[in-house]
Amino acid sequence: MSVITVIPGDGIGPEVIEQALVVMDGLGTGLEFDVLDHVNASTFLRTGVALSDVDFRRVSASQGTLLGAVGDPRVTSSEYARGVLLRLRSDLDLYVNHRPARLLDARLSPLRDEQRRNIDCVIVRENTEGLYAGIGGILRSGSTEAVAIDAEVNTYYGIDRVLEYAFSIARRGVCLVDKSNAVRSGGSLWQRCWAEAKQRNPDVPVTHLYVDAAAMKLVSDPASFDVIVTNNSYGDILSDLAAEVAGGIGAAASANINPHTGYGLYEPVHGSAPDIAGTGVANPLGAILSGAMLLARIGREEQARALTRAVEATVTAGRCTPDLGGDLHTKEVGAAVLAEL
Amino acid sequence: MSVITVIPGDGIGPEVIEQALVVMDGLGTGLEFDVLDHVNASTFLRTGVALSDVDFRRVSASQGTLLGAVGDPRVTSSEYARGVLLRLRSDLDLYVNHRPARLLDARLSPLRDEQRRNIDCVIVRENTEGLYAGIGGILRSGSTEAVAIDAEVNTYYGIDRVLEYAFSIARRGVCLVDKSNAVRSGGSLWQRCWAEAKQRNPDVPVTHLYVDAAAMKLVSDPASFDVIVTNNSYGDILSDLAAEVAGGIGAAASANINPHTGYGLYEPVHGSAPDIAGTGVANPLGAILSGAMLLARIGREEQARALTRAVEATVTAGRCTPDLGGDLHTKEVGAAVLAEL
Ligand SMILES: CC(C)[C@H](C(=O)O)[C@@H](O)C(=O)O
Ligand SMILES: CC(C)[C@H](C(=O)O)[C@@H](O)C(=O)O
Repeated sequence: MSVITVIPGDGIGPEVIEQALVVMDGLGTGLEFDVLDHVNASTFLRTGVALSDVDFRRVSASQGTLLGAVGDPRVTSSEYARGVLLRLRSDLDLYVNHRPARLLDARLSPLRDEQRRNIDCVIVRENTEGLYAGIGGILRSGSTEAVAIDAEVNTYYGIDRVLEYAFSIARRGVCLVDKSNAVRSGGSLWQRCWAEAKQRNPDVPVTHLYVDAAAMKLVSDPASFDVIVTNNSYGDILSDLAAEVAGGIGAAASANINPHTGYGLYEPVHGSAPDIAGTGVANPLGAILSGAMLLARIGREEQARALTRAVEATVTAGRCTPDLGGDLHTKEVGAAVLAEL
Repeated sequence: MSVITVIPGDGIGPEVIEQALVVMDGLGTGLEFDVLDHVNASTFLRTGVALSDVDFRRVSASQGTLLGAVGDPRVTSSEYARGVLLRLRSDLDLYVNHRPARLLDARLSPLRDEQRRNIDCVIVRENTEGLYAGIGGILRSGSTEAVAIDAEVNTYYGIDRVLEYAFSIARRGVCLVDKSNAVRSGGSLWQRCWAEAKQRNPDVPVTHLYVDAAAMKLVSDPASFDVIVTNNSYGDILSDLAAEVAGGIGAAASANINPHTGYGLYEPVHGSAPDIAGTGVANPLGAILSGAMLLARIGREEQARALTRAVEATVTAGRCTPDLGGDLHTKEVGAAVLAEL
């Protein structure tokens, strides 16, 4: 039997994951869920351990992981998110962060110009290097002469493979986003790998934007994008932005994957949202759609499609949480999706 | 007599700067303009020199600089923008990049929800360090084992002074934007300086957002922001985004300043836009409003106000370029502003 690790995490994480598990059970997936309830900020604050080696082995022995959200206002250090989410991305070599942004219903768009609303793109975010490499330190920490250095590390190996993935999923084209007019070394290495990838894929239409222009264009003309490929940091920013433009981050799902090993970690794009945790208004659709992405990757395409269709029907019927203009609670949305299955 | 250096630059830069000079002449400022026409991508491509030391001395001997845009599709290296714009920011120690985003007219907002439209914020971008420090290199350049490293450098000195500026201009509050949940060293140094700055300014309301959430919120609730203070790279991205949300980047102006020396370099937030260069549709309002920011800083507040009012009247009357929904050409917009003076 296929085992899926589940890390509910912090804030609204457990609330949205609960609904994802409810609908997946309702689908009759027959998957076994290994729920790591204790991997959260409270454990980190008490023990100093973000993710134990034992838990890491449980994750890597499973078929995939579904994660809610990590982050807690009581934790100010980066060691917590680095120790859980960033460790899993890095140690399982999940080098692609695949984040689709698609408007589920035209009424949800924050944009007023109709032509602009047809957003249906994928952010392909490099997920193992860049500014997230974790290499650096602080000189004279504590003094007013402190100097902090974080290395943005980009490798040919890392860039080339994520570009390859981006081209492999292109429908209408690939847009590279970088800052090669200002960031010298990484900029030129991305440009070199980009030139080679374009040559290997002569039939795919390509464009290139600097990251500032790309952020702007995601508001002024989001419908023009198909696949956006970019580094870890820009991908983090642009995927939240694209999700918002596509009607709200509450319904955005993502897949952290290694296309070669097939392993994937699936998570909603939203964070732990401590401000609304416990109020019952958290939108579970991002978590539910992340579950659908997981099902698709482990060979259950039909169940994945059924689940996605059920979510679309729920949204079209206005059976949503307040962020999407509805008045349902988290659990009621789960029940509504279940009823559509 | 006060001398202002003018660097028209590339693409639409010369077109918009021409109109800025026309309206400033019309104001009767009596300023002398030292126009460095030759500082552009063509010169760089021919000579390899982005900005000569002689030109740098002309800039630093003047009262301020007005710049159009730097960037050309023929230039793929970062050395050009680094050699002109980033050199001026760094060598003149213009550590604050002050970028207001204010909706000139409600009809220009791309957002459909009225409550969201009232955007009136300032991005305070650290302008001398971070990822723009230019420190790094490529190991095994040219090989498929290449490793590129760019250091993101943040210093107590650099962070503290830009935070101080942000607090000094706050009206409703200051929001720090960083990525301290993932970027270890810079993240913790920004957080430390932020804690100290908050303590020195106990009466200013403060908030903190991670950069991905901030990008999202600039679309979902832009009216909630007053002053956003952030690092060089995030400031680059968020200021383009804020300008677009506030009705379009064509009218966005910025000031690169050193509040202690008083020197400033003023430029529209838009780039050189090679795709529309020469077509006559470039919007000169960003350049004109940058001129107004310059006037305000060199003690000509009244002229600055008159110019800003004239721009607002022009926009309200719909006498704009196509990007703002009008049908005027660049020169006609300049003439329209002149007529309103
Ligand atoms: C041209 C480029 C290097 C520059 C920057 O990134 O600072 C520009 O985008 C800006 O914002 O002034
Ligand atoms: C929690 C945080 C470190 C993480 C990231 O920046 O990658 C999150 O924002 C995401 O996008 O999954």
